[in-house]
Amino acid sequence: MPEFSDLRVNGDRLWSTLMETAAFGGTRNGGICRLALSEEDRMARDWLIAQAKKAGWQTAVDDIGNIYILRSGRDPSRLPVAMGSHLDTQPTGGKFDGVLGVLAGLEVLRTLDDKGIETQASICLINWTNEEGARFAPGLMGSEVFTGDMPSETARSRKDNNGISVGEALKAIGYAGEEKAGDRRFGAMIELHIEQGPILEARNIPIGIVEAAKGQLWFDGCVRGRESHAGTTPMDLRHDALTAFAAFALEIERIARAEAPAGVGTIGVAHVGPGSRNTIPGNVRFTLEFRHSDAERLAAMRAAAETAAQQISADRGVHIELDCIWQKAPVTFDPNVVAAIAKAAERCGFDFIHMTSGAGHDAVAVAKVMPTAMIFIPCKDGISHNEAESATPQDCAAGANVLLHSVLELAGVSV
Amino acid sequence: MPEFSDLRVNGDRLWSTLMETAAFGGTRNGGICRLALSEEDRMARDWLIAQAKKAGWQTAVDDIGNIYILRSGRDPSRLPVAMGSHLDTQPTGGKFDGVLGVLAGLEVLRTLDDKGIETQASICLINWTNEEGARFAPGLMGSEVFTGDMPSETARSRKDNNGISVGEALKAIGYAGEEKAGDRRFGAMIELHIEQGPILEARNIPIGIVEAAKGQLWFDGCVRGRESHAGTTPMDLRHDALTAFAAFALEIERIARAEAPAGVGTIGVAHVGPGSRNTIPGNVRFTLEFRHSDAERLAAMRAAAETAAQQISADRGVHIELDCIWQKAPVTFDPNVVAAIAKAAERCGFDFIHMTSGAGHDAVAVAKVMPTAMIFIPCKDGISHNEAESATPQDCAAGANVLLHSVLELAGVSV
Repeated sequence: MPEFSDLRVNGDRLWSTLMETAAFGGTRNGGICRLALSEEDRMARDWLIAQAKKAGWQTAVDDIGNIYILRSGRDPSRLPVAMGSHLDTQPTGGKFDGVLGVLAGLEVLRTLDDKGIETQASICLINWTNEEGARFAPGLMGSEVFTGDMPSETARSRKDNNGISVGEALKAIGYAGEEKAGDRRFGAMIELHIEQGPILEARNIPIGIVEAAKGQLWFDGCVRGRESHAGTTPMDLRHDALTAFAAFALEIERIARAEAPAGVGTIGVAHVGPGSRNTIPGNVRFTLEFRHSDAERLAAMRAAAETAAQQISADRGVHIELDCIWQKAPVTFDPNVVAAIAKAAERCGFDFIHMTSGAGHDAVAVAKVMPTAMIFIPCKDGISHNEAESATPQDCAAGANVLLHSVLELAGVSV
Repeated sequence: MPEFSDLRVNGDRLWSTLMETAAFGGTRNGGICRLALSEEDRMARDWLIAQAKKAGWQTAVDDIGNIYILRSGRDPSRLPVAMGSHLDTQPTGGKFDGVLGVLAGLEVLRTLDDKGIETQASICLINWTNEEGARFAPGLMGSEVFTGDMPSETARSRKDNNGISVGEALKAIGYAGEEKAGDRRFGAMIELHIEQGPILEARNIPIGIVEAAKGQLWFDGCVRGRESHAGTTPMDLRHDALTAFAAFALEIERIARAEAPAGVGTIGVAHVGPGSRNTIPGNVRFTLEFRHSDAERLAAMRAAAETAAQQISADRGVHIELDCIWQKAPVTFDPNVVAAIAKAAERCGFDFIHMTSGAGHDAVAVAKVMPTAMIFIPCKDGISHNEAESATPQDCAAGANVLLHSVLELAGVSV
């Protein structure tokens, strides 16, 4: 396709749609509060459908509210190539998380129309329902119903804090489709997303090609020591739960650093008891999570943490317990889709690195039923799920251009 | 005084009084709830005064409610030798903290009466008001009003949670004396107390001779790092407030261990924010306290902590702040009183060690206005301020015998 190498999306138009649709649930602080299946979500969905109808693309909605916008290709025997993400946001979300992937997909379709380019396979833009899980738990609802990981009935029975179910909310906003989620097949799916992390910005690289998603292990833990008087208990007769916890936290950090950059380990929550200024802590309850793109290394991190817990317990006369409460295996994205993205980035002349996703995404969920990969662009300070979430017009356009050329690479172009 | 070497208190009688008076505020779990100047405190005070009157000893009460029970000596030109502690307890206190020091003093006076022993100096048993500070803050009230550290008017204006002042409570239970606290002078004061720590029990030694009380430095501290996504932020781009705090906590432990046994260091409280399982902690607020019997070493501990805070802040790109909110200088007890106690322990044939007190006591407060020292006996598991507080009849009797002979040594015996 050398004749299409110079093809570029309209970055200004992409930015305009990002800013225009940010009004649907726009907050005073420049963020978006667009909870799944809310009135604001309806407005954004209606706007998207209106753009599709205006362009003459087919639209469809399935029984969990996922929206499909299809620009037909020349060869009906080929499975469509999909692009997609989500229009819903966190309660104090930003303007890019999810939204960029949908609107960049729209911009790709518009660019193809503008240039009159016909693809071999059809191209499908997808808006996945309720990725965030903020109003209705759990998240990744549209994509996991699509894959069959969550039964559609289960998803539709989930309720928000006001007792309204997903099924009722879908009907209320007019997005309870007839089509059964998962009935469609796709040749590939690419999700463009802000990184939600600091790596691309720190390395000043515009494009991350995501070839895998980290698996996760979540633990609840506790340290039981012995509460005693801070003034009268000498150092050698203490069973201080807090200093034992501190030793454990540094071991976790050491274990995770040894697995960098593919592995991370985090203690996010710690409650120290009894919590008195002049009492040596007798217990610490905490959470621990590990993520790694390699299942064996993830298991090795767990084993190392358990060894550290035993060692510190023995050394300090305390008892450290770890209880694994949730796990998710790593996902490897499709090598052909990854290669297509790399080719697209090269064609556009962008520096890129291969990376793994540390967070969950619709693309991670659907990777089990279709060849999938992701494109990351930098976001300011790695901040996301926050009204301060920010990405530059240049980076958004770069991501959309890589998305465009990836899709062309996978769908094929009729010349 | 070789003829008195075999003199011993009546250990059974001492134990009986401990058990009998434990009924004044006795709890279902075998502890005592006898808040200062409560009805239960009145009952214990009345009981003590009744024993004194029965024995024919003089009694007096000062304007903060301290009780003085005087057994006259032969030489009115000598200042009385005092023994004392407190009858008030924590809300879920035990049967020994404070109480032992008063009732052992009573047993000493009774033993002297039993044997018809006349001392040169008078012997005075003191019950100090509101040592615990549980109902009316702060504690050490009777002793600090006595020394002038707290104006009597200030103390009497302190209110409990129901708005009742110390002055009102004193009147209500009939212990608002006329005598101005601090007007009396004493030649010495000895306080017998349970150790409230694990050292004597761990070393299987019945008597601790307390020659100093640790000074204290209290800090409020915080670590400010950077909150970020646990899944997407690689280990080398983190500014994790919790792992920085963990490194600091282990440094505090190292600093304190290097000063053992005279120094201790404790982080009792830690609050980790924002406290989300998959968010790297952005801040930790904590408390820190150091105690040391040597003022210079205490200052050195502080300096070492500040250096550690700076070093960890620089290494980890976080900011650790320490704010000193309270301090108390170490107290050295009187060498002559300490020597008299050692002589008494030797005379009784008890193993003993010299130690420092890590907690505050009335004896520590009044050491500035009279020659003072303390006797410690073991308590089970070092537990105190707890209904499970426990000491053996043997150890209580041993402490009372050392108190007896210390007092005889200091007061002198007419032969």
